[in-house]
Amino acid sequence: MAKTPPLPPKGTRDFLPRDLVRRNRVFGLLRETFARYGFEPLETPAVEHTAVLEGKYGEEGDRLLFRVLKRGQDLEAAEREVAALAEEERTPAALARSFADMAMRYDLTVPFARVVAARLAEIALPFRRYQMQPVWRADRPQRGRYREFYQCDVDCVGSTSMTVEAEMLTMIEEVFTALGFAEFTMRVNHRGLLDALMDGVDVPTERRSAALGAMDKLDKIGADGVREELGKLGLTDTRVDRLMEVLGLSGTPGEVAGALRPLVGEDAGGQAALREVGEVFDALAMMGVSADHYAFDVSLVRGLAYYTGVIAETVVTRPKIGSLAGGGRYDRLIGQYLGRELPCVGFSFGVERMLDAMAELDLLAGEATTTTQALVTLFARETVGASFALAGELRRAGVRTEVYTDVKELRPQLAFANKKGIPLVVILGTDEAARGEVTLRDLRAGQQRSVRRDEVVVVAQAMLGES
Amino acid sequence: MAKTPPLPPKGTRDFLPRDLVRRNRVFGLLRETFARYGFEPLETPAVEHTAVLEGKYGEEGDRLLFRVLKRGQDLEAAEREVAALAEEERTPAALARSFADMAMRYDLTVPFARVVAARLAEIALPFRRYQMQPVWRADRPQRGRYREFYQCDVDCVGSTSMTVEAEMLTMIEEVFTALGFAEFTMRVNHRGLLDALMDGVDVPTERRSAALGAMDKLDKIGADGVREELGKLGLTDTRVDRLMEVLGLSGTPGEVAGALRPLVGEDAGGQAALREVGEVFDALAMMGVSADHYAFDVSLVRGLAYYTGVIAETVVTRPKIGSLAGGGRYDRLIGQYLGRELPCVGFSFGVERMLDAMAELDLLAGEATTTTQALVTLFARETVGASFALAGELRRAGVRTEVYTDVKELRPQLAFANKKGIPLVVILGTDEAARGEVTLRDLRAGQQRSVRRDEVVVVAQAMLGES
Repeated sequence: MAKTPPLPPKGTRDFLPRDLVRRNRVFGLLRETFARYGFEPLETPAVEHTAVLEGKYGEEGDRLLFRVLKRGQDLEAAEREVAALAEEERTPAALARSFADMAMRYDLTVPFARVVAARLAEIALPFRRYQMQPVWRADRPQRGRYREFYQCDVDCVGSTSMTVEAEMLTMIEEVFTALGFAEFTMRVNHRGLLDALMDGVDVPTERRSAALGAMDKLDKIGADGVREELGKLGLTDTRVDRLMEVLGLSGTPGEVAGALRPLVGEDAGGQAALREVGEVFDALAMMGVSADHYAFDVSLVRGLAYYTGVIAETVVTRPKIGSLAGGGRYDRLIGQYLGRELPCVGFSFGVERMLDAMAELDLLAGEATTTTQALVTLFARETVGASFALAGELRRAGVRTEVYTDVKELRPQLAFANKKGIPLVVILGTDEAARGEVTLRDLRAGQQRSVRRDEVVVVAQAMLGES
Repeated sequence: MAKTPPLPPKGTRDFLPRDLVRRNRVFGLLRETFARYGFEPLETPAVEHTAVLEGKYGEEGDRLLFRVLKRGQDLEAAEREVAALAEEERTPAALARSFADMAMRYDLTVPFARVVAARLAEIALPFRRYQMQPVWRADRPQRGRYREFYQCDVDCVGSTSMTVEAEMLTMIEEVFTALGFAEFTMRVNHRGLLDALMDGVDVPTERRSAALGAMDKLDKIGADGVREELGKLGLTDTRVDRLMEVLGLSGTPGEVAGALRPLVGEDAGGQAALREVGEVFDALAMMGVSADHYAFDVSLVRGLAYYTGVIAETVVTRPKIGSLAGGGRYDRLIGQYLGRELPCVGFSFGVERMLDAMAELDLLAGEATTTTQALVTLFARETVGASFALAGELRRAGVRTEVYTDVKELRPQLAFANKKGIPLVVILGTDEAARGEVTLRDLRAGQQRSVRRDEVVVVAQAMLGES
């Protein structure tokens, strides 16, 4: 036992209070904002039947599932089954299928689709939900990539109205602003518009996915890079020129839409896409979203297979951090267990990346390192009761108060408060008690003052509020 | 895919918003109270190395671990290892050991001990932490017993002072009172006192554990039952009489202590125990804990192997629901990875049982079924902008507001609010808009009133506050 190094498994993390104060501030702000926009919480188990998760995330995803070993007789039966296989059939994939009956949650979308199917009768549609829970992936851990990490999804299932997209983007603007990100843009596009453009430029069906993939890289490889990739796909120069022209469009959403209209021409899907994306932009303006915070960006593609309508992505533009949230309309996925379509719009916040970015931008500096606001000292056996009574008063007034555990000199008690980052120390010594006074020391400011016993709570609150 | 019934694995649960509103109220009250008493949050991964968990919970515990299957080459290697075993050696326990490298968290104490060892340099002692996270056990599911359930532990590591026990009991009283439990008792005893009593009554060492086990059942099988069990252990009638006399002690803590003193006699451990438990009762009185809410209960035993000092348990007495929280001092467990003792006091709240008990006692009735407070209707394309603007105002004032997604008649929008349990509907029709008015309908009271547009936020807040 003593030989096991007491570390958590590779790619997972222990969170000490100082970490959680920061994480919980961000998570709390997200939850509070979601609730204020009418999104309700949903939670699903950490584990799902393997049949629910297998085949949903591609071959790579199947390989990255953390699977839960069968137990007892089921495990013995699985071993007999495996023993009967030829040796070359005992691949990791085959072993994994035989030995496991459950797997750990890999994302929040598949469990959401499952719950919607299982509990549809109890759910009032349209259903706006958020879910913020850990997921597990057996990825190679690296800087910023973990095997256990939180995902945070907001979805609205059951409506085809563009008000859904518009409200989500408004909420996303509020979240990033409240977290202190100054310069960010919500890039908005429409899957149907991309289809229409591919039609309009006559890109052959089998090359569309690759062409869109190349366009999606504009941010990373620049216009010349995209041009080169499109050329390699065997598209004619004329086609490449027309696609590059589209990618070069800029201006207000209205201007971009105006420039796209002739390219879309009579294509019904393209016209519908322009109308829908236009409705979203109109609504954003009506809701008072700053025009600096959104743009019509024809180069935005995102996960192609998935989306069916408006797509969007929030990128921090200065410093250039990249995408921290993204999503869009995907009308065909959520109804999969019901065997029918259920319209759905969903966005995912990259909460772990957001936390990393906030640390990088110093947006978490000055943040408290503990939830505790005040330490009440214990000086002498005779004053323990007085310390307890004072702590009780502070707590009833909402001040988060710890009483030091042992009767000791002041020095170690101050050192303790300093190490934890408790801002206020309430010193209740025998002399002070005799005078009916209490000393309040602000460890951040390095200042202290003596106040009358009956003023302590009010002064403590003021000192804590001043910082 | 369509053939998989969309249910969560056996013994696990999906939580819809109506469930989470209630769970989160209880969890939130716990977190808020813990923080107010200076306890800080800690979180550990869902998975641990199997070596960390194996052998910590007895043979039964090892069997109940959910283990995580090895992956890739490790899994193939494990299969080759198993294939080399004789068939009778391929027991479920051996297979589990070979095929898994991690297991899911079984409780919160072992991970806490691991983190304390791993991060001791960063932790300021005494360290008060709480942890509220799910654990997983492959138990046979039954009413009130799940395979995934939350545990909620508070611990203070690093002090031998009885102020720790006293403050925890004070906090526990506050929690149960705030949750609405009217009649409950914190039964308090001391492990050292039980040892001294066994000495005093000359119970042979090898029968002590069984004798204490019998005494612990007083609540369930009554005095006659305990007497019978003690008799079956081969204790003489005199010894049984003396133990029954101890069990029959009642009165104030001071009275019980007075009666115990002659029985303890010169036993140093017993005297120390009486002194410690006395300090705790004195402190509880000083902290203003109601004398109805605690008792010196010599029949309280709890998990013997574990505890080294004061032990306690909170039982709801009317209706007779039993223990909902328990714990005590266990000075030898937390330091196990460090190879030394670290004094520790810990209590565990049975949060799932508490939720069940609250439902049974109707303490959750009248609780909202959604976090959303107001639904703003969408009536006509022309008023969509006005609805958004009003929703924005309500949200800025802190009212959790959903805007209906689609332009529709009033009826389905009201039905939607009713099904979800949204208390207030904000009706913004074309006629109303023309008059500069808005109708507020309180669905709980079945009343509505029209107010001027500029009064909406204030009146809505008042209507929501009235309930």
